[in-house]
Amino acid sequence: MSWNTFGRALRFTTWGESHGPAIGAVVDGCPPGLDLAEADIQPFLDARRPGQNRFTTQRQEPDAVRILSGVFEGRTTGTPISLLIENTDQRSKDYSEIANAYRPGHADYAYDAKYGLRDYRGGGRSSARETAMRVAAGAVARLVLPEVSISAYVTEIGGDAIDPSSFDATEIGNNPFWCPDAEAAKRWEELVSEARLAGSSLGAVVECVAEGVPAGWGAPLYAKLDADLAAGLMGINAVKGVEIGEGFGAARLRGEDNADPMRPGANGPDFASNHAGGIVGGISTGQPVVCRVAFKPTSSFFTPVESVTRDGEAAQVRTKGRHDPCVGIRGTPVVEAMMALVLADHKLLHRAQCGGD
Amino acid sequence: MSWNTFGRALRFTTWGESHGPAIGAVVDGCPPGLDLAEADIQPFLDARRPGQNRFTTQRQEPDAVRILSGVFEGRTTGTPISLLIENTDQRSKDYSEIANAYRPGHADYAYDAKYGLRDYRGGGRSSARETAMRVAAGAVARLVLPEVSISAYVTEIGGDAIDPSSFDATEIGNNPFWCPDAEAAKRWEELVSEARLAGSSLGAVVECVAEGVPAGWGAPLYAKLDADLAAGLMGINAVKGVEIGEGFGAARLRGEDNADPMRPGANGPDFASNHAGGIVGGISTGQPVVCRVAFKPTSSFFTPVESVTRDGEAAQVRTKGRHDPCVGIRGTPVVEAMMALVLADHKLLHRAQCGGD
Amino acid sequence: MSWNTFGRALRFTTWGESHGPAIGAVVDGCPPGLDLAEADIQPFLDARRPGQNRFTTQRQEPDAVRILSGVFEGRTTGTPISLLIENTDQRSKDYSEIANAYRPGHADYAYDAKYGLRDYRGGGRSSARETAMRVAAGAVARLVLPEVSISAYVTEIGGDAIDPSSFDATEIGNNPFWCPDAEAAKRWEELVSEARLAGSSLGAVVECVAEGVPAGWGAPLYAKLDADLAAGLMGINAVKGVEIGEGFGAARLRGEDNADPMRPGANGPDFASNHAGGIVGGISTGQPVVCRVAFKPTSSFFTPVESVTRDGEAAQVRTKGRHDPCVGIRGTPVVEAMMALVLADHKLLHRAQCGGD
Amino acid sequence: MSWNTFGRALRFTTWGESHGPAIGAVVDGCPPGLDLAEADIQPFLDARRPGQNRFTTQRQEPDAVRILSGVFEGRTTGTPISLLIENTDQRSKDYSEIANAYRPGHADYAYDAKYGLRDYRGGGRSSARETAMRVAAGAVARLVLPEVSISAYVTEIGGDAIDPSSFDATEIGNNPFWCPDAEAAKRWEELVSEARLAGSSLGAVVECVAEGVPAGWGAPLYAKLDADLAAGLMGINAVKGVEIGEGFGAARLRGEDNADPMRPGANGPDFASNHAGGIVGGISTGQPVVCRVAFKPTSSFFTPVESVTRDGEAAQVRTKGRHDPCVGIRGTPVVEAMMALVLADHKLLHRAQCGGD
Repeated sequence: MSWNTFGRALRFTTWGESHGPAIGAVVDGCPPGLDLAEADIQPFLDARRPGQNRFTTQRQEPDAVRILSGVFEGRTTGTPISLLIENTDQRSKDYSEIANAYRPGHADYAYDAKYGLRDYRGGGRSSARETAMRVAAGAVARLVLPEVSISAYVTEIGGDAIDPSSFDATEIGNNPFWCPDAEAAKRWEELVSEARLAGSSLGAVVECVAEGVPAGWGAPLYAKLDADLAAGLMGINAVKGVEIGEGFGAARLRGEDNADPMRPGANGPDFASNHAGGIVGGISTGQPVVCRVAFKPTSSFFTPVESVTRDGEAAQVRTKGRHDPCVGIRGTPVVEAMMALVLADHKLLHRAQCGGD
Repeated sequence: MSWNTFGRALRFTTWGESHGPAIGAVVDGCPPGLDLAEADIQPFLDARRPGQNRFTTQRQEPDAVRILSGVFEGRTTGTPISLLIENTDQRSKDYSEIANAYRPGHADYAYDAKYGLRDYRGGGRSSARETAMRVAAGAVARLVLPEVSISAYVTEIGGDAIDPSSFDATEIGNNPFWCPDAEAAKRWEELVSEARLAGSSLGAVVECVAEGVPAGWGAPLYAKLDADLAAGLMGINAVKGVEIGEGFGAARLRGEDNADPMRPGANGPDFASNHAGGIVGGISTGQPVVCRVAFKPTSSFFTPVESVTRDGEAAQVRTKGRHDPCVGIRGTPVVEAMMALVLADHKLLHRAQCGGD
Repeated sequence: MSWNTFGRALRFTTWGESHGPAIGAVVDGCPPGLDLAEADIQPFLDARRPGQNRFTTQRQEPDAVRILSGVFEGRTTGTPISLLIENTDQRSKDYSEIANAYRPGHADYAYDAKYGLRDYRGGGRSSARETAMRVAAGAVARLVLPEVSISAYVTEIGGDAIDPSSFDATEIGNNPFWCPDAEAAKRWEELVSEARLAGSSLGAVVECVAEGVPAGWGAPLYAKLDADLAAGLMGINAVKGVEIGEGFGAARLRGEDNADPMRPGANGPDFASNHAGGIVGGISTGQPVVCRVAFKPTSSFFTPVESVTRDGEAAQVRTKGRHDPCVGIRGTPVVEAMMALVLADHKLLHRAQCGGD
Repeated sequence: MSWNTFGRALRFTTWGESHGPAIGAVVDGCPPGLDLAEADIQPFLDARRPGQNRFTTQRQEPDAVRILSGVFEGRTTGTPISLLIENTDQRSKDYSEIANAYRPGHADYAYDAKYGLRDYRGGGRSSARETAMRVAAGAVARLVLPEVSISAYVTEIGGDAIDPSSFDATEIGNNPFWCPDAEAAKRWEELVSEARLAGSSLGAVVECVAEGVPAGWGAPLYAKLDADLAAGLMGINAVKGVEIGEGFGAARLRGEDNADPMRPGANGPDFASNHAGGIVGGISTGQPVVCRVAFKPTSSFFTPVESVTRDGEAAQVRTKGRHDPCVGIRGTPVVEAMMALVLADHKLLHRAQCGGD
């Protein structure tokens, strides 16, 4: 039933609350003999880490990961890899307000309705802090996928999209928005600054491309590669939509315009286009795997909003203090991590049934 | 690893190829004591059945379901429910062409790349024929959910959307398109007829709403209700995108405009809006659960398209004979079924951890 | 949660009741490209089939298996293999007595306590008839294991054990008891005949050896090869005990007497003994995998026994008609099948994590 | 595929090696609202802890457990419970010998054969040290089972069995052997002391009884209560056999002698005997659940034994230093824990399908 476990062959389980002593993940099923050290994971955590510039929350967490098991003399042993990050920035603040009144758009009410109680400090288990462990687990998954390169980037913030014709992969790391379009990045500086100062928040669209995925990964009918990606991505905090390839755009095309013609190629067919996003019938085709996710604007903002208390009384809720003006930005490394985790899982799944190294 | 099994507590496994002797499903974990007969399942299959009007494929399949186990004296026993439909319309036709040349957009090449061989007759396992078993299993799931009513309908075909202000639920059954807007239905008659005659195909958007879902279903973090819906829906043949609530539209809203204010209500809070689509933090809020899926246009059309053969030679592929001009139409009951299956599963999952009947 | 599914990578799901229209299994995860026809399965079913001699029940079931999916042109396709056997010997008899009074030692009371109702005809789902599908699935599993040969045989009936020094594998097929000791087989003829005529029943011990299992199958800590074997074997109807290697005998040995010394060998170490039964730390060592299971005497016998009715009234229950005087005999092919299923599953599991073909 | 996860609804995942920085477990699916503190777990760990008397290893580990998540203000929240124990007694000793030569009966060779490398320090992942986390997880499981009381005890050491007629439950805690027979406990003092001084080791049989289990837990056919118990118990280090109820003894009884007659009772039937060990057809009957496990003598002893090195050279292996003369003793709390974990899991599973609190 796997409440807190994701994956089939390469599985990871996360635990921890925003303001508990630590958060962690256990990665199970990792092949043995891979070189792994904390330094292989830390850069990915650093990319996601808050407090790095004025466009993300000012919460400070060094997010230093420790490997507690599954690695011996620098190599994975095939036994579970336990990863742990201590929560160091647990400000002792007054949570009585948040404990009592439900923040609309946050999981406060849903958790209480389900469990009858909740750890309300900083959102507890529902905090996006948990995504740090997805990023850490994703770094392990990448080791399983030396043949694949994965890149996620933001294509739209607050409705302002990049110009596809200006796409430049080398720009992605040059700005705080993972933006592949230098012009758009400049516009977003203003846009996000304005939202931050206004205490508002913005949504975003993140695209992720995996190159080097061979044809044949994914398993019909209920372990389809695209279905597993959809589950993995929709489960990221604040995500409300997932597309593969052409996505919703495909609903507006005619069949003959959405086809991806094939021509004889050196290693399998050469495709003339990639409307399918590299997946047909739930199985990879050898083309780049392309997906897109929609991040809602975070529900933390200064404008007061009507709500109710635990006792059902009317209340006004207003976010105070630090928050991300656009969670999609920090969500970008998380999207990359989930792509890596799903692909690595399917690589091993394919091997189980069909062999090969 | 569950290649062909979906669900956690209420699970179903499907089997069968388009042109084999039969297709089937095994539904496991169903509560005992529910009234169930073939007549409870057949209407849902009839709704999905092809050949009913000129807007869907003319393939004729009576799709008569048989219950082979798990029911005794008209009631479920708690043991697995085996459902079987014989394939009766297996035209003996010449498949040598399809056997050899890969149809772009179909799973032909991907299956061969994965398995090294495939049952090419009518698409084999990758045929949308399998969705009949999802619909049958979904009919069982509905019995587990007497408190929930589920309705799916088409909101857009070939880029032509309904007018939301004309939405009329009673219209859905009055036209062959599951269209809730009588005007749009008329336009679609022309649109779909034209595409059919031209041997082209159209995409569609299907929306599905479940009312009566109580707050508290869904389980963070890797059994989130929205993530499971995304997996279930993205796995339907031809689906390329899934949205929950506001979906990609949320990426264009500000936080304060995307919030769903709560007010004191008789049974939990009354929500002033439902941007969230009834799910926050992966858990239902008591509001209607709303999702939307994008169906691509089927890859069967008359226009010849470049492709390759199994041996890597260049080829031209052109669909002959019967096909659906818009698979989204017949996909609509499948969307409903997957919604029912996911919700029923989560009802039982919630009960496992948190009790209650 | 997998109520009716067994296995991790190679999974099978069974369905069906003793007196329903049919029983069946879905085998999922089977590698593609294996030669498979009904004739590959039928001999194993025939070996288990009742009514073949006077030492097993006289119920007549041809048990002819049909393959409904997953095989194309004589080879497995990698998609689920649906196997079905029609129930042909459903005598229309009066079940009112069994419907009302619980048969001690049978699952009647337990099923009612759990589900509130049950299909009481012939034991319904709890009937050993289901084991036919394990045998059928096991025949598929054997195809995955060409390097392994598996043999189960009866070592003890009603407390009368074979003489290990008279063990002769060629004798196993020469008598109706799967007995490797010709002398013991003669004694058992008398023993079982007597029990049958007296309307009594006898227990048995079955041993199973798999040769050719390479070192390295099995996965610590909760997918151990011996733990999975224990689950698979303990779940067979009437089994009450499972041993690996020396089993309970090991509890009476000193460490130095239970050790299996290793010497340099051509392919890995040569072991001087096999107290471990080929499994250490949950992983195969390359030695033969050896297990032993205890079958209780069936709870069907002529002696009346005290019981209660569904309404809690006192009752006397007495088995009438056909039954097996020693279910361990017909259980022997089932033990073999479960060994094959567990080993094939672990072969694929090992491949997922550690590669290799 | 769950290499290191056990359970279906209440699941736990363990991680950690004998000489790594820590070991841990994540317990997932625990109902919310249960009172839980470290003090509820520690006593069970203390019972298993080594170094408490001269009959167990002198290795000193305080085994102080920390709860890192899933508990808020003293109550479980329904989110995963992370448990961690630091490894404090990691003597810096020379492992070069054990690194090179395989200890017969230990998992050294099997791990190398599977993974190609291993953490050889103290057995690494294959060390019984991992069982501390089963005990910790089991303490959580007990909270889910207030209606059930579980007791495990040793019935036999080195072939010397207790006298069943002298069984006295109050004696179990009065001696270092969990022995319910005061006379036997005295004999074992001598027996175990002798073995310890001789550097030998002894096997043991442990019995476990769970009282208060209601009828109806367990799910046919592949989530049978006895099959899950068999898996859970066979997976404990050094266990080679598992019996339910009469176990192998049932193979020597006639059907009429193995039956458990039922009589009208106040709450369901009163059973006249319990040969079945409280489980029929894989489902609990309301009687005490009884199982028995065989522990082999540990493979650590002073007598040199033939072996091979990693390079395939002949070697002599001889255990030096601290070890348990009878691992069955310290295994007793582990058996109890696994019983609790399986029962708690099945309580929740039953609730999922059949409702009830």
